Amino acid sequence: VHRTKVKVVEGVLDANDTLAAANRSDFERHGVRVVNLMSAPGAGKTTLLERTFELGLDGLRAGVLEGDVQGSMDADRLAAYHVPVTQLNTDPGFGGECHLDANMVRSALPSVPLEELDLLMVENVGNLVCPAEFRIGEHARAMICSVTEGEDKPLKYPLMFRACELVVVNKVDLLPHLDFDVDRLLANVEVVHPGVPCLRVSARTGEGVEAFRDWLVEAARGGRPAAAGVTAPA
Amino acid sequence: VHRTKVKVVEGVLDANDTLAAANRSDFERHGVRVVNLMSAPGAGKTTLLERTFELGLDGLRAGVLEGDVQGSMDADRLAAYHVPVTQLNTDPGFGGECHLDANMVRSALPSVPLEELDLLMVENVGNLVCPAEFRIGEHARAMICSVTEGEDKPLKYPLMFRACELVVVNKVDLLPHLDFDVDRLLANVEVVHPGVPCLRVSARTGEGVEAFRDWLVEAARGGRPAAAGVTAPA
Repeated sequence: VHRTKVKVVEGVLDANDTLAAANRSDFERHGVRVVNLMSAPGAGKTTLLERTFELGLDGLRAGVLEGDVQGSMDADRLAAYHVPVTQLNTDPGFGGECHLDANMVRSALPSVPLEELDLLMVENVGNLVCPAEFRIGEHARAMICSVTEGEDKPLKYPLMFRACELVVVNKVDLLPHLDFDVDRLLANVEVVHPGVPCLRVSARTGEGVEAFRDWLVEAARGGRPAAAGVTAPA
Repeated sequence: VHRTKVKVVEGVLDANDTLAAANRSDFERHGVRVVNLMSAPGAGKTTLLERTFELGLDGLRAGVLEGDVQGSMDADRLAAYHVPVTQLNTDPGFGGECHLDANMVRSALPSVPLEELDLLMVENVGNLVCPAEFRIGEHARAMICSVTEGEDKPLKYPLMFRACELVVVNKVDLLPHLDFDVDRLLANVEVVHPGVPCLRVSARTGEGVEAFRDWLVEAARGGRPAAAGVTAPA
């Protein structure tokens, strides 16, 4: 078992928390609620946002801060929905950072039109480890997991499933073609994060997207984030 | 666009390269070839190894070094195949590291029976960013991507698709149920890593697993890693 120097990591987190608080203060001065979306690569964050924009957000003015190692493919997709999208690339010349942190978000804020927004959705870098360790000043976090990833993921990446106010179980349209037991996944979620609301969604067919939209709207209106149509483990 | 201090990152990499060379030297003294397996979470690395052990490795003595943030679920699955499995957890008390590095692997080596092995397969932490940045002393790297992750992944995570000698395109049994164009994925792979061999595989049905096994056997025998049954983009 490998052990890193925990002291160093704690130092980093403290600086991050200070910057996250500064971001939060800016968000609140502008009356913007911020939701941090996290998932493994390819779990469907961008497609879920596309379907959500198609449904509409009940009159709320929404924007996106798009985090990627490099490129702006997702940002380009979302800009088609006529929402303000800001691209934040973590690539420092090689490899790139595998997560957003408060300082990166802070560096991007001058390019985000906060005064025009009620809700800012931050699409984090696809990764089930480090994004969960770095608060960015957000009001709520949603993590999206895909049914193609296996039922064991909450047990293997517990911090990610714990550090969120909503779990979206995406790609449920594929369930008939997979050896995947949703109840077992939900039971594993319950082990690491008792009581967290879970939504069954297919961003492809639209199933469950309305419930996700409702959760976002409630989060944006300052209500305690809680999912409608919660799917509890049996 | 966020920029980190590149100098610091380079310093870390240099220390890692020194330790990777020390690992490599230990591997070669014992006549062990080492393959580093990388992928996003849930792409099917462990299932692919299970099917490979079922096929057999042409008499080679194989072992596994299993990297996870925490837990030993994958190691327990693979131990059922009567191969020596060593679990390496990156969890330092919170969150955990999102990748293996040469130092972690070095810390685990006393628990790996190198003298009994011809081939050591290292299952890296599920992540498409950082594992590609840290050599661990391996002879070859294979990255596994799943057709459920989207065709854009090579363009979004180019270093991962570049830092490997084989790309395994897994879960092809799901293709009839997805809006996924394999040729587009392979064309994107070709953009970031021209000429890299790609295998179409379903660890679930067994399709293509033999070609993967053959690649491993060739890598273990010291041949230049090259995939049989290469699927080139059209």
